[in-house]
Amino acid sequence: MIEKVGKSTLALSEGPTIQSYAAVGGKKEQEGPLGREFDFTDTDTTFGEKTWEKAESAIQKKAVTLALEKAKLDKKEVEYIFAGDLLNQCIASSFGLREFGIPLVGLYGACSTMAESLSLASIFIESGCAARCAAVASSHFCTAERQYRLPLAYGGQRTPTAQWTATGGGCVVVQKGGAGPRVRHITFGKIVDLGITDANNMGAAMAPAAADTLKNYFEDTGTTPGDYDLIATGDLGQVGSELLYELLGMDKIHLQPRHKDCGLLLFDRQTQDVHAGASGCGCSATVLCAHILRQMAAGKLRDILFMATGALLSPTSSAQGESIPGIAHLVHITAE
Amino acid sequence: MIEKVGKSTLALSEGPTIQSYAAVGGKKEQEGPLGREFDFTDTDTTFGEKTWEKAESAIQKKAVTLALEKAKLDKKEVEYIFAGDLLNQCIASSFGLREFGIPLVGLYGACSTMAESLSLASIFIESGCAARCAAVASSHFCTAERQYRLPLAYGGQRTPTAQWTATGGGCVVVQKGGAGPRVRHITFGKIVDLGITDANNMGAAMAPAAADTLKNYFEDTGTTPGDYDLIATGDLGQVGSELLYELLGMDKIHLQPRHKDCGLLLFDRQTQDVHAGASGCGCSATVLCAHILRQMAAGKLRDILFMATGALLSPTSSAQGESIPGIAHLVHITAE
Repeated sequence: MIEKVGKSTLALSEGPTIQSYAAVGGKKEQEGPLGREFDFTDTDTTFGEKTWEKAESAIQKKAVTLALEKAKLDKKEVEYIFAGDLLNQCIASSFGLREFGIPLVGLYGACSTMAESLSLASIFIESGCAARCAAVASSHFCTAERQYRLPLAYGGQRTPTAQWTATGGGCVVVQKGGAGPRVRHITFGKIVDLGITDANNMGAAMAPAAADTLKNYFEDTGTTPGDYDLIATGDLGQVGSELLYELLGMDKIHLQPRHKDCGLLLFDRQTQDVHAGASGCGCSATVLCAHILRQMAAGKLRDILFMATGALLSPTSSAQGESIPGIAHLVHITAE
Repeated sequence: MIEKVGKSTLALSEGPTIQSYAAVGGKKEQEGPLGREFDFTDTDTTFGEKTWEKAESAIQKKAVTLALEKAKLDKKEVEYIFAGDLLNQCIASSFGLREFGIPLVGLYGACSTMAESLSLASIFIESGCAARCAAVASSHFCTAERQYRLPLAYGGQRTPTAQWTATGGGCVVVQKGGAGPRVRHITFGKIVDLGITDANNMGAAMAPAAADTLKNYFEDTGTTPGDYDLIATGDLGQVGSELLYELLGMDKIHLQPRHKDCGLLLFDRQTQDVHAGASGCGCSATVLCAHILRQMAAGKLRDILFMATGALLSPTSSAQGESIPGIAHLVHITAE
């Protein structure tokens, strides 16, 4: 049963089970601190395809294939797939998932996609729409850079606040009943825009949305950061994380001791030259599927909040002088 | 309660009520056969904004505002908004809905968006996630043409199979209980790709997906086209509609007497020079909100299927030699 708690949080009383998950990454992700936890990494940015866009589709396909294999599932046993990515018209999802023949609910949530897809998949299970769904998200450094910023060959200098788009994707399979971590609460965020216009400072653009969703969640559930083993944000990076502490601090919410940002977990900022950290739908998707859910399976984490954040800009909106609206969706997951 | 019927159809036993709806259109839409049924039309393609992209955001904002006004609702009474459009990174939705402060579930379903957003909004109501949700979709001829095809100033010749992207948007407000038409069944479609590569023939690319979803729906529910007053497809246009009849004919399903395509309703093909018909998320969204739901309110239609179809391509995927995958989502609506 699903019940609204407080103003904007959904409580899932049974709680769909995370049955399986898989993370796929690239070379830099393999060389990062979580490298060994990925299910599959490829040192070639093309993943054997002719273009980077096709490579990103291959990442989604591989992530779904591996998540199904790990749970010994046939694709016919998945009733709906929720997916999105950063590419224009979300072609990584459309082409990557084309062959599965599973009804698709296409999403656009920028880098918040993994939380959005997992939330909708969980709601479909809890409400009886389906017995098993998959949630997918991906990004690719090479497709994102050339689409959002500059041709890679141009070799543009990156600013200190810039983040490095993760090459990777994650897939979570959620089902009714069974063993595994359970999705307990969901808070969908609203668009928050404090007027940041610097497209090289996504963390700052997304932090206000992150603060808003977290604040609403804590209010709705009457909990505090101390009640959780981990509060994982999507890809705020160093700059965005500090801003998040500052914004929540104004409301006397002290996140820091329990907070980790996926953008700061995926790469080693000291040695991997990623400036303010990682970003992209694939950042939170891979950190969730390679690391966080493994830590839950190993009993190291029991009660976590996973909140992915998205910057809802496009090169066109920036060129037209618009600021960068942010959004953040939150999922509360507990060990069985 | 939501129950799976057959392989892929969801039956909503209570059935969320369509409380309000509004359609916003441009000059060509105003001049078309449904012109008088729109809630608002503007003869200026900019809708008073500085760019066409901002104009499309203004369309979404206006559609939501009017739908709320018509039902005397405050924006705070809408718990979730489901929205999408055709622009890169769905900026029409992000910027158009920014000021409402309503939690947003961002979607990408290409021209299938209106059915996708209405489906998810209905599922949220039926499952108890919310008491009231809004579903929105839009497109704009000028933003779509320059993004997908050629600069407008280039004056490129259009092929006979080409369709004319609708300038407009629709918003449907769905709620628990009350008076109004009810959403009874939902069928989410899977990606279907029969290898069409002509980006000027979207109808042909989407027809196989339309056939697949309709066939599944009829099988799942044990109904036939004759059981409905109207079967409205999104924007197959003339070419796609004929292909749809042919494809369903192979399975002895004869759609023609009850079928109308939104792409053939919005404009007068004889006088408005739109070649194979209208297209775009705004096509099915405006025909639903300006015409179909009004006809239901007037007692002229009692039992309808609304199925929007999407072509999941991007200029990049076409440039890389990819074919055009299609998708179609279906909503069954009955008068109270």
